[in-house]
Amino acid sequence: MPKDWALAGQQRGLAEELFIPPTNFSMVDTGVYRSGYPNARNLPFLSTLGLRSIIYLCPDPYPDHMTEFVEKHQIKKFHFGLETNKDPAHDYPEEIMKGALLVLLDVRNRPLLIHCNKGKHRTGALVGCLRRMQRWMLTPIFDEYRRFAGSKARLTDQQYIELFDTSDPVFVDAMARNRVGNAAQIDSVQEKSGAPVDLVSRKEETRGGEASKVEEQGSTSSRQSLGEDSSDSDTEVHRQAMT
Amino acid sequence: MPKDWALAGQQRGLAEELFIPPTNFSMVDTGVYRSGYPNARNLPFLSTLGLRSIIYLCPDPYPDHMTEFVEKHQIKKFHFGLETNKDPAHDYPEEIMKGALLVLLDVRNRPLLIHCNKGKHRTGALVGCLRRMQRWMLTPIFDEYRRFAGSKARLTDQQYIELFDTSDPVFVDAMARNRVGNAAQIDSVQEKSGAPVDLVSRKEETRGGEASKVEEQGSTSSRQSLGEDSSDSDTEVHRQAMT
Repeated sequence: MPKDWALAGQQRGLAEELFIPPTNFSMVDTGVYRSGYPNARNLPFLSTLGLRSIIYLCPDPYPDHMTEFVEKHQIKKFHFGLETNKDPAHDYPEEIMKGALLVLLDVRNRPLLIHCNKGKHRTGALVGCLRRMQRWMLTPIFDEYRRFAGSKARLTDQQYIELFDTSDPVFVDAMARNRVGNAAQIDSVQEKSGAPVDLVSRKEETRGGEASKVEEQGSTSSRQSLGEDSSDSDTEVHRQAMT
Repeated sequence: MPKDWALAGQQRGLAEELFIPPTNFSMVDTGVYRSGYPNARNLPFLSTLGLRSIIYLCPDPYPDHMTEFVEKHQIKKFHFGLETNKDPAHDYPEEIMKGALLVLLDVRNRPLLIHCNKGKHRTGALVGCLRRMQRWMLTPIFDEYRRFAGSKARLTDQQYIELFDTSDPVFVDAMARNRVGNAAQIDSVQEKSGAPVDLVSRKEETRGGEASKVEEQGSTSSRQSLGEDSSDSDTEVHRQAMT
């Protein structure tokens, strides 16, 4: 199996110079994209997005093609290992979702791609929490969730979104600092270089660093930004979240 | 029936300060949104997008709430009156779709909302043509089309998208001038104020003009940009496209 599918396609005279976005790819907001798991065919397209970060929501470590991609393009990978919630008794661990949402709310991490496996459940739940923070009514949030989940829509995800506590001071603070109520507001924040967006403490220079170092910073900074000491259970959760 | 539903909701203590995006609302690309027909409840949300233009794809004139909205926010309405293609023998008139796509490709018209009635068929076909111009493979284009059309997906729309001639010099020229291959490229074009984006000839000052004047400019300029004299049939099509 050739590693670079786009190149292989060109060699066969197929899909010449055509872009192949990942399954369930879509734009969520300015500088925020969502999708299913990218395969090697999708990389030429993804490289056009100028990504600064990826929020990766599956427990497994990245395969070679993704590791090479993030290293080559100096993309920060924020790895939050979420198990699927197929089992209705299972719920997403709150601290992991919190960490992922804080990374997502920080405009300095954009352009950013959120992906899990199918781009339906874990990604859909995280985007749903973003919409709650953006003060969307539940009807359009569920409409959007189901548009991507299709016949696989899960009530557990929709319950999670509805029960999500938007009054948590960490998120209220993040929204206030980043002013990320909507796309237009994000633009204006990005234009102002001096905007007080210092929620997730990380060095601006990390783009040039090693990928492994960057990953660790991602998970660490999101824990720090929750403003909590790591109890035993917290540590376990975050250990799971790191590759 | 109260005219301002969002206000009515607040008065009843419902949906207080919550945003209600239109049916099937989504971001398509940087500065490009799509949706079904906005109702009065959706206007507080739409006003957060900072829209510069709307591409409206139904034959009917705008109702009062939309006319007032575009006037209040000095939004240019580009009205292309497309009939639905429920009848498989019916096809979208090529010149109307051409005009709409040229408006869509011009980054100076963004932020921009495309809408028809349900945000499924006419909007889906136009977005599909945009994706063809962006060199997407057909699989992800149809995936996106069906995500919004759901069980109402029409093969006629998908045929239209597949048969769409991306080699038309008008569009090739538009893409070359605007460099709108993808979101990142659009950003870079917008940053360069001196970029040679003069495809649709209109005054930059139109934002301050009257809405009715703006509408006429929209339709006229898209005809001009096709580089054709208006034959009788063309005139008929474009008359239909104007309110």
